[in-house]
Amino acid sequence: MPNMKIPDVAIRRLPVYLRVLLELGEKDEEIISSAELARLTGFSSEQIRKDLAYFGAFGTRGVGYSVEILIQRIKRILNLHEVVEVALVGAGNLGTAFARYNLNAHQDVRITAIFDNDWGKMGKNIADVEILPMDNLSGVIKERGIKMAIIAVPAFAAQEVANTLVNVGIEAILNFSPTKLNTPGHVSVQNIDLSIELQSLAYYTSSDDKDLE
Amino acid sequence: MPNMKIPDVAIRRLPVYLRVLLELGEKDEEIISSAELARLTGFSSEQIRKDLAYFGAFGTRGVGYSVEILIQRIKRILNLHEVVEVALVGAGNLGTAFARYNLNAHQDVRITAIFDNDWGKMGKNIADVEILPMDNLSGVIKERGIKMAIIAVPAFAAQEVANTLVNVGIEAILNFSPTKLNTPGHVSVQNIDLSIELQSLAYYTSSDDKDLE
Repeated sequence: MPNMKIPDVAIRRLPVYLRVLLELGEKDEEIISSAELARLTGFSSEQIRKDLAYFGAFGTRGVGYSVEILIQRIKRILNLHEVVEVALVGAGNLGTAFARYNLNAHQDVRITAIFDNDWGKMGKNIADVEILPMDNLSGVIKERGIKMAIIAVPAFAAQEVANTLVNVGIEAILNFSPTKLNTPGHVSVQNIDLSIELQSLAYYTSSDDKDLE
Repeated sequence: MPNMKIPDVAIRRLPVYLRVLLELGEKDEEIISSAELARLTGFSSEQIRKDLAYFGAFGTRGVGYSVEILIQRIKRILNLHEVVEVALVGAGNLGTAFARYNLNAHQDVRITAIFDNDWGKMGKNIADVEILPMDNLSGVIKERGIKMAIIAVPAFAAQEVANTLVNVGIEAILNFSPTKLNTPGHVSVQNIDLSIELQSLAYYTSSDDKDLE
């Protein structure tokens, strides 16, 4: 099988397929058509067939895809065939929400280390994970070989946190701070910025004066 | 000027341009080149010129774009030339984090109504906005003509909340619940799902066995 490069946009659809497939698996469904996957995910069946073909999953015409095989392949591609540990930096409201949600939601990507610089939080747990001081960050991440991190600190502190994370071997960062991080090319950064989401969404609301001039 | 349809991907870049331009404006910069905008935003200058041309902003060759005019045009396109009110449904950790962050971050899109079904939270404020019971939701949104909402409730409650929001005239929803919402075609929904972000990001970490077969 060719080890071809899968486009970023397709990678972002794979977890959506995975979620639907896992739900089907729990209902003991063995086969799924691209049309049914389209209905359940909201993507077109053409798009789905193309995405799945990237990693050599070709459905049987008139039958469909094996749910179990698709689950295994997608997990393997996303490196989710074993538990992925994630470090969370920042245990404010946002960080706390993520850690709690993460515990309930799924076990394949798991926040297993939480860091904050507020001494009042030390020793407390969020979702059974102890909050540790920032001084422990490098040691813990190196020791456990953690490769992913979530940054949920104020904007002014984000770049310094990112530098530290990169130095200790973090390869992928989910950044919730409203600031553009400078990181080396081998580090993947995904930014989620509430302001930008809200501002772009405002475009789709009706306005009494839509004329631009 | 043609009132042409701007692609969704370009719309999502406009708030990033806007943020950089507002910072430049505060430093009394009057002119910006596409090359400088590229450096500050991370997008290519070719992409930037193309995006800005969608709404008729053509730079002067060898000079650049007027910072002030670009700010006004982008605000106008995004409906941000006047304050946009947003209703937040769900005042848990996530909702609280957004409301606090929103107050600090910017004033053009503003959370001005917060709803929850926990009676213990009633009458409390987040960032100077009072938490109201769900029973008040329809009345408040209709009365104030609010068109945007954030859903930060557990997955099982999200669809019911979305139905209510659509019924009272909400046109754009930012959905943080890990569930696919069914909404009519005229309603824009942007989903932010932590699981999906983390799972797709895991793809970019190194693995000892990258072979897929």
